[in-house]
Amino acid sequence: MKAEILTIGDEILIGQIVDTNSSWIASRLIKENIKISRMISLSDNKEQMLEIIHQSLERSDVVIITGGLGPTKDDLTKNVLATYFNSSWRWDDNVLKMLEERFNNRGKHLFELNKQQAYLPDNCITIFNDRGTAPGMFFQKNKKLLFSLPGVPYEMQGMIEDSIIPSIKEHFEISPVIFHHFLTINVAESVLAKRLSSIEDNLPEHLKLAYLPHINTVRLRLTCNVIHPKEDRTMFDDIVKLIKSALGNDLITEEDISFEEYIFKILKEKGKTISFAESCTGGLISARFTQIPGVSAVYQGAVISYSNEVKNKVLGVPDDLLKNYGAVSPEVAKAMAEGCRKHLNSDYALSVTGIAGPDGGTDEKPVGTVYIGISSSNGTQTNKLFYPAQRHRIMEYSMLSVLNLLRLVLNKE
Amino acid sequence: MKAEILTIGDEILIGQIVDTNSSWIASRLIKENIKISRMISLSDNKEQMLEIIHQSLERSDVVIITGGLGPTKDDLTKNVLATYFNSSWRWDDNVLKMLEERFNNRGKHLFELNKQQAYLPDNCITIFNDRGTAPGMFFQKNKKLLFSLPGVPYEMQGMIEDSIIPSIKEHFEISPVIFHHFLTINVAESVLAKRLSSIEDNLPEHLKLAYLPHINTVRLRLTCNVIHPKEDRTMFDDIVKLIKSALGNDLITEEDISFEEYIFKILKEKGKTISFAESCTGGLISARFTQIPGVSAVYQGAVISYSNEVKNKVLGVPDDLLKNYGAVSPEVAKAMAEGCRKHLNSDYALSVTGIAGPDGGTDEKPVGTVYIGISSSNGTQTNKLFYPAQRHRIMEYSMLSVLNLLRLVLNKE
Repeated sequence: MKAEILTIGDEILIGQIVDTNSSWIASRLIKENIKISRMISLSDNKEQMLEIIHQSLERSDVVIITGGLGPTKDDLTKNVLATYFNSSWRWDDNVLKMLEERFNNRGKHLFELNKQQAYLPDNCITIFNDRGTAPGMFFQKNKKLLFSLPGVPYEMQGMIEDSIIPSIKEHFEISPVIFHHFLTINVAESVLAKRLSSIEDNLPEHLKLAYLPHINTVRLRLTCNVIHPKEDRTMFDDIVKLIKSALGNDLITEEDISFEEYIFKILKEKGKTISFAESCTGGLISARFTQIPGVSAVYQGAVISYSNEVKNKVLGVPDDLLKNYGAVSPEVAKAMAEGCRKHLNSDYALSVTGIAGPDGGTDEKPVGTVYIGISSSNGTQTNKLFYPAQRHRIMEYSMLSVLNLLRLVLNKE
Repeated sequence: MKAEILTIGDEILIGQIVDTNSSWIASRLIKENIKISRMISLSDNKEQMLEIIHQSLERSDVVIITGGLGPTKDDLTKNVLATYFNSSWRWDDNVLKMLEERFNNRGKHLFELNKQQAYLPDNCITIFNDRGTAPGMFFQKNKKLLFSLPGVPYEMQGMIEDSIIPSIKEHFEISPVIFHHFLTINVAESVLAKRLSSIEDNLPEHLKLAYLPHINTVRLRLTCNVIHPKEDRTMFDDIVKLIKSALGNDLITEEDISFEEYIFKILKEKGKTISFAESCTGGLISARFTQIPGVSAVYQGAVISYSNEVKNKVLGVPDDLLKNYGAVSPEVAKAMAEGCRKHLNSDYALSVTGIAGPDGGTDEKPVGTVYIGISSSNGTQTNKLFYPAQRHRIMEYSMLSVLNLLRLVLNKE
C-alpha cells in the first residue's frame, strides 16, 4: 500500500510557514506501519492542484491532502476536488447544525461565508471536525482513497486519529508492527553503530534498527514487521534485552518521550522538586520544561541570571567569586546551583553558565565553553563542557548535558 | 523562470525530522523575486530519485536538491546524479586540500570514507562548502540548472547565499523586486484587509500586498515587480505612506525583524534595561529574547516564578496578596512586575501570570485567563487577557501581549 501527502498553500511555497503537518502525519502513520512515499507542497493554483492530485492517485493508494479548506477565496481545495471527482453539491445538515452550535456558544453570528463550509461535494463522505469549523472530505475512486483535511495542525491531528487511520485500516490489510525505543546520550551515532554492529548484522530481514540523532542524544527505534506473532514477540524481546545491555548507562529511557519528559516523570515518581539557575541558556531549559502539562508538581521555578548583578543579588553568588574567577567558571556554576536550591527551595537545582557566542569568547574561554552544576542535599558538583557551535546549538547541548547530570545523580540516589 | 526544491531523506518521510530547508530556501529566494512552484520530499531510493529528478527538470528551469550527500551508504544523491547525467568521475584536488586542512585543524585523521567526498562527477561544477565537508554540485542540461546541496541547514544556507543565488541570476533575467514590511499587532487579518481595502483595490498589477498572520500579529509584505525603476519607486513609497498611516498605532515596525528583536533594538537605542517575571509563560519570553545575539546589553535576567513560594520569596509578592486574590490576579501581576524591577534592578520589568492549561481552570478563571503587567519609574499597570486555546498558543499570545504593553509604554516615554 502506497501513501502520499499533499500540502496546499502559497504560504508554504514562499517560505512564510514551515510545513509541520506532513512530518506529524508521517510520524503518526509510521506507528501503524503505514509509510509515506512522497510529500509534495503546492500552491493555491487550480491547474497545478488538478495535475498533482491526478498523478498522486495514479501511483498511490492513499492520498492525504491538508490545507485550502478555509472560507476565503484563496481556499480552492473543495472546488478543485469537486471538479476532479465530477461532483454535484449538497448541504450537510449535520455540519450546519454543528456550525450553528459552535458559533452560538461563542456568542458569534454565523455569516453566509461560514455557512458555506456545510456545502459539500455530494460524492464525498464528510469527515467531522471536532476541533474547528472546516469539515474534511473522504473520496473513493477505483479502490483509491483521498482524504482532504484542514491545514490547522490541531484540527488535522484530531481527524487523522479519529477518522483517517481507522478508515485506512478498514480498506487495506496492514501488517502489524511492533516498536521499541531507546533514548541515549553522549554517544555518537557512529560509535553506537559500532557497538551494536554484531546485533544489527544478525537481525532478520523483518527487523530494522533506525538511528535518529539530535545534538548529543540518539533515539534508536527497533521495528518488527510481525509475521508470526508469538515467535516474533519472543525474538523481539530478546533483541531488546541485548540492545539494552549493550547501551548500559548511556540509555536514558525506553519510552518514546523527550529527555525533559523523562526527568519530569522520575522527579514526580520520587516526589522531588527542581529549579534552574540559567545564564547562557537564557530560559531555554525552563521554557522546554514548562511545555509539559502538569509540570508544576515538580517545578519550583528558575532564575535567568543573565547579568552578574542578578547572579549576585538574586542567587547570592558572592561578588568576589565573580571578580576572581569570572561568571563562566566552575566556582560560579557551583554557587549558582547552591543559591538557586536555597532561594527557590527545591530538592535539586541545576545551573548553567557559559559563552554561547557569537561574541564574548576569549583565548582562554572560547565560545562554546560552558560550566554546568547540580546541587542537592548530597552536595554540589560541576562539569566543564566545550561545544563550539552555533549559539542555539550550544544552548541545546548545554541543556541536554545538565539534564544528564541530574539523571546520573538521580540514578545513584 | 520556474524553480522547485527536492528534499531527500528517509528521515523526512518517516516524520523524524521536519524539513525546514525548503522553507528557508523559499523565503530567501522570494527576496530575489524567484518563486518556488513545488517542493517534494522523497526517500533515499535510487529509482524514485531518478524519476523525480527527471520530471522536475522537464517542467522547471531550476531544481535545487538538498540532502543525501553524506559519506555513508544511505547517501545516494551523488551516485544518482552521476547516473542521470551520464558522468565519469574525477578527483577534485581543491576539495581534497580543503578536507585535509579541515581535518588537520581539528586534529583528526582523514579517513578514506571522508576523502571520497572529493570524488565527483566530471561534468558538474563543484560548489564549495565553507562550513562543512560535503561539496555541492552544479549541473547544466539544455539550459536547465540543477544544484545539489548538503542537508545540514547551516552549510546549505551558506551555499545558497554565496553560489546558488549568483548563479541563477547569471543564467536568468530576473526582474528586480522591491519589498516593504509592516508588522502589526492585535488586529485580525480580516479587519486589516477591510481597513486596507481601498488601498489594495487600487494597487496596479505589479504590486501585491501579502498577509502573514501569526497568533495576534500580522506581517504585511508589499511587493513591487519593478518595471520602470524611477516611477515605480515613487509610487511604491507613496503606497507605503498610505498603508503606514492606515495602520496607525497598530504598526509595530517596518523592519523585517521579530517583535522581540524590535523591542531589543528600541531598548538598546534608549540605553534602557529589562527583566521578566514569568509564571505561566514558563521562561518562553526569556528564551526567545536570549536568542538575539548581544542581548546582554539590555537584558538583566528573569525570575520564572512558577510556584507561589518563588513569587513570594524571590520576587517579594506578599503572601496575603497570593492568598486573597490568587496567583492569577491583577494584584499579583502588579506585585510581580514591581518585585522583579526592584530585585533585578532594571528600568522596565514585565510580568505574566495566568492559566495555560490544560488543567487548572475554574469557572471564575478558565484556562486562557492571563494577567500581564509592566513596571517602570513611571509606575505599574496591568492588563487582563483572555485567550482560550492550546497551552503553547496561550503562552505565545501572552508573550506578544506583554511585549506590546512595553511597546506602548516606550512609545509614550
